[in-house]
Amino acid sequence: MENFELTILGCGSAMPTTRHYPSSQILNHRERLFMIDCGEGAQLQYRRNKIKFTRLQHLFISHLHGDHCFGLIGLISTLGILGRTSELIIHAHSDAERVFRPQLDYFCRDLPFNVRFNAISTNQNEMIYEDKALKVSTLPLRHRIPTCGFLFEEKEKERHLIRDMIQFYNIPIRELAKIKQGEDFITPEGLIIPNERLSRPADPVSRYAYCSDTIYQEKLIPLIEGVDLLYHEATFAEDNKARAKETFHSTAVQAATLAQKAHVKKLILGHFSARYQDDSIFLQEAQEIFPHTIIAKESMQIRF
Amino acid sequence: MENFELTILGCGSAMPTTRHYPSSQILNHRERLFMIDCGEGAQLQYRRNKIKFTRLQHLFISHLHGDHCFGLIGLISTLGILGRTSELIIHAHSDAERVFRPQLDYFCRDLPFNVRFNAISTNQNEMIYEDKALKVSTLPLRHRIPTCGFLFEEKEKERHLIRDMIQFYNIPIRELAKIKQGEDFITPEGLIIPNERLSRPADPVSRYAYCSDTIYQEKLIPLIEGVDLLYHEATFAEDNKARAKETFHSTAVQAATLAQKAHVKKLILGHFSARYQDDSIFLQEAQEIFPHTIIAKESMQIRF
Repeated sequence: MENFELTILGCGSAMPTTRHYPSSQILNHRERLFMIDCGEGAQLQYRRNKIKFTRLQHLFISHLHGDHCFGLIGLISTLGILGRTSELIIHAHSDAERVFRPQLDYFCRDLPFNVRFNAISTNQNEMIYEDKALKVSTLPLRHRIPTCGFLFEEKEKERHLIRDMIQFYNIPIRELAKIKQGEDFITPEGLIIPNERLSRPADPVSRYAYCSDTIYQEKLIPLIEGVDLLYHEATFAEDNKARAKETFHSTAVQAATLAQKAHVKKLILGHFSARYQDDSIFLQEAQEIFPHTIIAKESMQIRF
Repeated sequence: MENFELTILGCGSAMPTTRHYPSSQILNHRERLFMIDCGEGAQLQYRRNKIKFTRLQHLFISHLHGDHCFGLIGLISTLGILGRTSELIIHAHSDAERVFRPQLDYFCRDLPFNVRFNAISTNQNEMIYEDKALKVSTLPLRHRIPTCGFLFEEKEKERHLIRDMIQFYNIPIRELAKIKQGEDFITPEGLIIPNERLSRPADPVSRYAYCSDTIYQEKLIPLIEGVDLLYHEATFAEDNKARAKETFHSTAVQAATLAQKAHVKKLILGHFSARYQDDSIFLQEAQEIFPHTIIAKESMQIRF
């Protein structure tokens, strides 16, 4: 049973091409949409991919380079025209409010909803969002400007009650919540019924890590250990390894190495430089190190 | 012989759809590109339509609603990455510099070229650009905020010399420029040779008028009288005539009426509201009044 659905709206880098939109994606968790980065044209990609604007909950911006945020003002403006009333929270570096607020004040004067900027710290692993079922924390990255990735983790889920046994022991409704949490049941007679007889294990939780843009850095490994899906930038292939280091980007091989060392279940590469006409080079190079690699593509959907 | 080539990059209105990009177009005059409005995704449309970024000379912004300028920052950023060095001049309302300069300062710190804002007056007909062959002036429009259209006019051209006659009268080279301007020639013997014997008429000049966004207003008529091509907004069809007035927009019928009264040669409608699934309604309604009407479409090219 899948918990997340990731839709790639854009997986190009600095320069948009006819093949790629700049960075932007939608993570759907139980029909609540979390948007990660918002490059130019993101709102066009909402339409093309039939993403429901109304379901957008929170927006996470990794860093304030244009290819990750130039679509913000257009998206917000459209949400206004569509009549959104619920607050939109943008999690981003503290500069974001300083840069975008004047634009909102000028272009979106009569916005029917509030835009709140949550200033996040990009240099430490910190929880920035939580609801009943999910939490999001930052992943410190190293790029030319303050940058962080995001880790989306489902919270521990409740165990499944075994209805027949609940009936058999005649367990009152008020006790059920505790049993779902893993507690044993004690009958009025003082008999202990172990939880394992009353409930089946909870569904496994899913975890998604988004790391873009960043130089290769192994200190990410403990933070993303074993995630179900890792999106990692691979701006360059091995032919431009020096350029990757110089510009604080990664190669496909580096992304794959990180994925392997962190024992992630699946790796998806993105943020491809416009200089590559054919993205399959990234896949080839990465798969030699980490076979469970795929490459991102606009409109691709991955469930996990 | 065509003088202008117009490429439609976007002809939608406030909300982008899967059918239309927001307002943006390129007017090519002798391989110099003049851009009119710059909605989100304009730079993507450059690529899709193989527009040469390097040939962009001047940018004209009709008004500061997002659907006419949200693509500006992305386009400028890309011009920087592509290594442009020549100054880019943006002709727009004076607010433009106040709104966009801070963004340029933040996102495009190391831009290798200068961006200059030319503050234009939107409420009078005023020449804002001229070169050897072309002049551009504002067309005062009436919208919810200060707005103007643009009139692109070729300058009077030189007459064509009749080589045989030039030789026959043995006219010195230094006299030729005057003859191209229409002057007669006086032989050393004092004989007047009328210009008509020495030259043929100049090629006709072409004129293009861009009017978006605006309520219907007849005071435009003398300014656009007889232009070769008029782009006029038709945000609504007759079914939303009241809404057009309310929002300071025009209907297709109003655009056609204006075209007819101004004796323009051809009318192209654009800036269609997202509520219309089928744009042919605009064409039908307009053609009943002004048959030489076409409707804009992304990637359409018109030579005139």
